[in-house]
Amino acid sequence: MKMNILVTLDSNYLYPLKVMLKSMFFHHPNDTFNIYVMHSRIKPEEIEDLKQFAAREGSEIIEVKIGEEHFADAPLLMHYTKEMYYRLLAFKFLPKELDRILYLDPDILVINSVKPLYTLDITGYLYAAAYRNQLGTAEVNKIRLKPYDIDAYYNSGVLLMNLALQRQYIDEEKIFEFVKKYHWKLILPDQDVMNALFARLIYPLDEKIYNYDVRKFRSYRTSSKGKFDMDYVIKNTVFLHFCGKKKPWHPDYRGRFHALYKHYEKLAFPKEEVVEEEALVVASV
Amino acid sequence: MKMNILVTLDSNYLYPLKVMLKSMFFHHPNDTFNIYVMHSRIKPEEIEDLKQFAAREGSEIIEVKIGEEHFADAPLLMHYTKEMYYRLLAFKFLPKELDRILYLDPDILVINSVKPLYTLDITGYLYAAAYRNQLGTAEVNKIRLKPYDIDAYYNSGVLLMNLALQRQYIDEEKIFEFVKKYHWKLILPDQDVMNALFARLIYPLDEKIYNYDVRKFRSYRTSSKGKFDMDYVIKNTVFLHFCGKKKPWHPDYRGRFHALYKHYEKLAFPKEEVVEEEALVVASV
Repeated sequence: MKMNILVTLDSNYLYPLKVMLKSMFFHHPNDTFNIYVMHSRIKPEEIEDLKQFAAREGSEIIEVKIGEEHFADAPLLMHYTKEMYYRLLAFKFLPKELDRILYLDPDILVINSVKPLYTLDITGYLYAAAYRNQLGTAEVNKIRLKPYDIDAYYNSGVLLMNLALQRQYIDEEKIFEFVKKYHWKLILPDQDVMNALFARLIYPLDEKIYNYDVRKFRSYRTSSKGKFDMDYVIKNTVFLHFCGKKKPWHPDYRGRFHALYKHYEKLAFPKEEVVEEEALVVASV
Repeated sequence: MKMNILVTLDSNYLYPLKVMLKSMFFHHPNDTFNIYVMHSRIKPEEIEDLKQFAAREGSEIIEVKIGEEHFADAPLLMHYTKEMYYRLLAFKFLPKELDRILYLDPDILVINSVKPLYTLDITGYLYAAAYRNQLGTAEVNKIRLKPYDIDAYYNSGVLLMNLALQRQYIDEEKIFEFVKKYHWKLILPDQDVMNALFARLIYPLDEKIYNYDVRKFRSYRTSSKGKFDMDYVIKNTVFLHFCGKKKPWHPDYRGRFHALYKHYEKLAFPKEEVVEEEALVVASV
């Protein structure tokens, strides 16, 4: 099966992107991917390198470069560039014949097949996304986005997009209008906009399977009455999401999935196979 | 390259053995193994299953069944069966044409190539093994095994065996004699015997590369002045050894390499690829 994947990023995230892609390739030995890379600032040689990386696994990188002319009049928020609109308005820049695509953040590991999600029936929904089900975040965000009276808060790190419906339904101007009006309330602008404007048209996914926040191992295990232990997670969870500021490719990271991340990182960036002198040094007895 | 591996176990360890073997196969896509399984009680159908498991990766299981007649007069220790002698006297039961073999405990993960170790020049040594370099264990064991005045304490979980020299040098009777004399002092009989009788003929390996005790992450990192961080371990360590009573295939296990162990466990025991109903259950919004 051939699946469409969307990523939007700048050069800073090319390194984790490769780890994410490698983990995805690893769990799909019999599938290939068309990976749309939406960006404005990645260098041609970096795109070329990415293309070769994907080609070695039988997959294809399709560059979607967003020129200066786009979003020229869109309202911007402090600290945010116009890239904040890429995810929301990707449908405008993707080929007309695509009717679905799976958007993934680059700080994700794919640890099981994405097919059950990719083939999900989302007729009538703009997206499928994971609902953050825990007390706290969801509640706070409901209150924060009160004017729009949402009854859920979704994480936008994993989004199965119904492009056909988005083309009919999503109005760029309404998004800009919303941002202008509520800019002072927005923390994660694209995620907030998606929740405020479209929450009722989002198909809710179990976050423990499709957007597992690696910081929440204990709380997931407890709330599932022990079902989501490490064994179950490794066998069933599809996306491990390394949410938060601390990232597993940083030297000072620590966390339960650190070794696993490093494992995929090594697969993505294999070193030359050399006999390491060092490895044979006699311990100083 | 084709390499000889030795394991000695009973049916209880077949499960982790497969995980260990799978991790080894994974890191040697271009090598194969002759795996000698030395045992007295594994069922024929279990051996057959193991053979198929290895054959799928191009490797071979060679059964070395030790009959009742062997070690009939050997001294036994409380709680220990005659299997305690298998590792020490394996050379007697292995084909005469083998001159080296790598013994591995089944509670190990192989996370990099074993070739640099396997091809090590150990002329004049009976074994290559990792020296437990930390204050504590090594010191205590030196004192415990004082009569034999050893100056090191080696872990017998990873042993590169020089079979040619062992056949000339190791005297079964001397081993039995030692066990009779010091039985009250022996805690891990085979490891103690190896250390007491042969320590000076063991080629010392860096335990952080060749017999990494997963419980010691912090102490290794500190003693190496930060060099052995997670990144370095995943890229350079060859054997992760899940020492101690808590094992990563137990439900209540926790530790830094838990997710990684579960990952290899899943590779060793892949489930049928089915669309899990469960995975698509809508979160209760």
